[in-house]
Amino acid sequence: MKIVIAPDSFKESLTALEVAQAIENGFKKIYPNADYVKVPMADGGEGTVQSLADALQGKLISVEVTAPLGNKTQAEFAISGDGKIAIIEMAAASGLHLVPIEKRNPYYTTSYGTGELINAALNLGVSQIILGIGGSATNDGGVGMLQALGIKFKDAQGKEIGFGGLALQQIAHIDTAHLDQRLTQVQFNVACDVNNPLYGEKGASATFGPQKGATPEMVQQLDQALLHFSRIVERDCGKRIAERPGSGAAGGMGGGLLLLPQVQLKSGVQIVIDTVNLAEIIKDADLVITGEGRMDSQTIHGKTPIGVAKTAKLANKPVIAITGCLREDYEVVYEHGIDAVFPIIRQLDSLPEILAQGRQNLESTAQNIARMHLLVQRSH
Amino acid sequence: MKIVIAPDSFKESLTALEVAQAIENGFKKIYPNADYVKVPMADGGEGTVQSLADALQGKLISVEVTAPLGNKTQAEFAISGDGKIAIIEMAAASGLHLVPIEKRNPYYTTSYGTGELINAALNLGVSQIILGIGGSATNDGGVGMLQALGIKFKDAQGKEIGFGGLALQQIAHIDTAHLDQRLTQVQFNVACDVNNPLYGEKGASATFGPQKGATPEMVQQLDQALLHFSRIVERDCGKRIAERPGSGAAGGMGGGLLLLPQVQLKSGVQIVIDTVNLAEIIKDADLVITGEGRMDSQTIHGKTPIGVAKTAKLANKPVIAITGCLREDYEVVYEHGIDAVFPIIRQLDSLPEILAQGRQNLESTAQNIARMHLLVQRSH
Repeated sequence: MKIVIAPDSFKESLTALEVAQAIENGFKKIYPNADYVKVPMADGGEGTVQSLADALQGKLISVEVTAPLGNKTQAEFAISGDGKIAIIEMAAASGLHLVPIEKRNPYYTTSYGTGELINAALNLGVSQIILGIGGSATNDGGVGMLQALGIKFKDAQGKEIGFGGLALQQIAHIDTAHLDQRLTQVQFNVACDVNNPLYGEKGASATFGPQKGATPEMVQQLDQALLHFSRIVERDCGKRIAERPGSGAAGGMGGGLLLLPQVQLKSGVQIVIDTVNLAEIIKDADLVITGEGRMDSQTIHGKTPIGVAKTAKLANKPVIAITGCLREDYEVVYEHGIDAVFPIIRQLDSLPEILAQGRQNLESTAQNIARMHLLVQRSH
Repeated sequence: MKIVIAPDSFKESLTALEVAQAIENGFKKIYPNADYVKVPMADGGEGTVQSLADALQGKLISVEVTAPLGNKTQAEFAISGDGKIAIIEMAAASGLHLVPIEKRNPYYTTSYGTGELINAALNLGVSQIILGIGGSATNDGGVGMLQALGIKFKDAQGKEIGFGGLALQQIAHIDTAHLDQRLTQVQFNVACDVNNPLYGEKGASATFGPQKGATPEMVQQLDQALLHFSRIVERDCGKRIAERPGSGAAGGMGGGLLLLPQVQLKSGVQIVIDTVNLAEIIKDADLVITGEGRMDSQTIHGKTPIGVAKTAKLANKPVIAITGCLREDYEVVYEHGIDAVFPIIRQLDSLPEILAQGRQNLESTAQNIARMHLLVQRSH
């Protein structure tokens, strides 16, 4: 029997690999000789770098980069074991968590550090970059990132503009002549699960600005700045980015990235599924187990378990999910390929206690699922 | 497919029948046409009257009785649908919960009210009485109960002694001439899961006295009183009760009951199993589901799930348990016939919230077990 274990991480508790290992441990108590394949998964959000580093026998690399407010910080990204793929999370260099709450201000926060991470990956000679863009502190249309990669954004006086979303208003001319030419050789897969356009009612500023510290007046200003930016892009680069679904993601980072040569915006979990070759691994599986820290009705919107379930269902495989918690509205997952779900909490306790029991509770739940599997199998 | 659902109640949340109904509801979402048999179970402790009333299509009857301190209280017992079996819990008339904490004093508490409940059952013409003796407030050797049934306990002056464990010291003579003769026609099954003798180090007073309010000095006095009682019993009734395993149960109630004509002390869950005919019901089952509010290593000591599991295993049937909570030391249940266990908690919440979600969480867990059953069955 071949069992594929492909869970997401359990936030604040266990990495995806640790989750998979605990599930395997539980199953092995009942099926010691089954063939287990652990595939640490992610959906392009938090934990993606760690999961793919683990899935691809990769390693983490730490680089000094520019934080959102211009100060320096250390940020990690991953490189696959074969050296061909870099996995970067924008949040590592340009994340909201790097800015103290009272200083959160998208007028001034820059995505420059993310460009530096991309540079560091290019220096390693990768042929593919996977970029997760969740959790950013910025609303700069990815201009900071593009500056770090060699594109020059000049004002009416021919001077390069400064950092932040507000400065975009001053762009008079975009000069791409010095863009890092290694980018033409690199396939860029951007994990993007939102369809927001660059500006307007559903644009980056209106949708994501407030959570980054923008007041209603700032949202207006930032929205105007992105509109202005997109017009100059169209004139100077010949690209219409504003209406492209996802161009509004991560403060317009989705749009800014489209100025690079080989960029595709894709579903995060699909990028991970393709990268780890999940369909191939599942092909001859007898059972697929997935999971996430918290399952609810949102799970069907691009979260790992549903990505795994859809891949498994293409090969007609049974899919069981194991979850940290399971909200009352979860049942819609049954319509998206999950056959059964088991939460792992065994007793009431404080949240820190429950998080600390994660590994043990996962093992216990997995063991009981295996026991259930065995007893039904035996009786038929 | 025949599915037998035989759980205990979930204390403070759902009766055994309600638990069984919720499990059936969950299973029916996946197996709407299976043959379901719900058997509300109990182990002789709290909930036994309600479970057996439900299992035997019985009804509850309320009677005014004497509470442990001599005041009056209403107490319920059950009578089976066919009128042949009465189910009585000693705690209903003589329970610790009927005495305010500051008044708990086994010198004075009496089991008289339990005798009145037995009387009420005899008045209904039953041929069997099932008596659960857990949770008592008394240490009177069952003397109060025996007084209510007509036995006279006289002091040296020929006067009847008063209520309570201390008064036993004054017994000079026991007169059984007026014992209710209907008791010779009634089979008396007493649910007793402890082996304590009447007196001594492991006797009623030393083991259970302190939780009923006895100080160390009182334990000594009460122990002497029970010893004295047993000597008079031997002399006047020709019965050696003190060393009989279980005679120390419920403040010596186990011993006092042995003065009645047709009494057997048995495992509580075994009485329930026999009464509901569980072995017969399970004989042609494909799957047995049991459960209890909290499963741990104590579950193997006479609790419902293990009783059900042992009965099921005699017929080689698979057994799944569903539990409110599941303590880390639960795994020993696997060695006693439970094949797999699933706790129902789906998310952290306050205890009242969790209790309120019991029905919904049971349904959800049962549905997922059924889903798991179906997917394994289909793949083989």
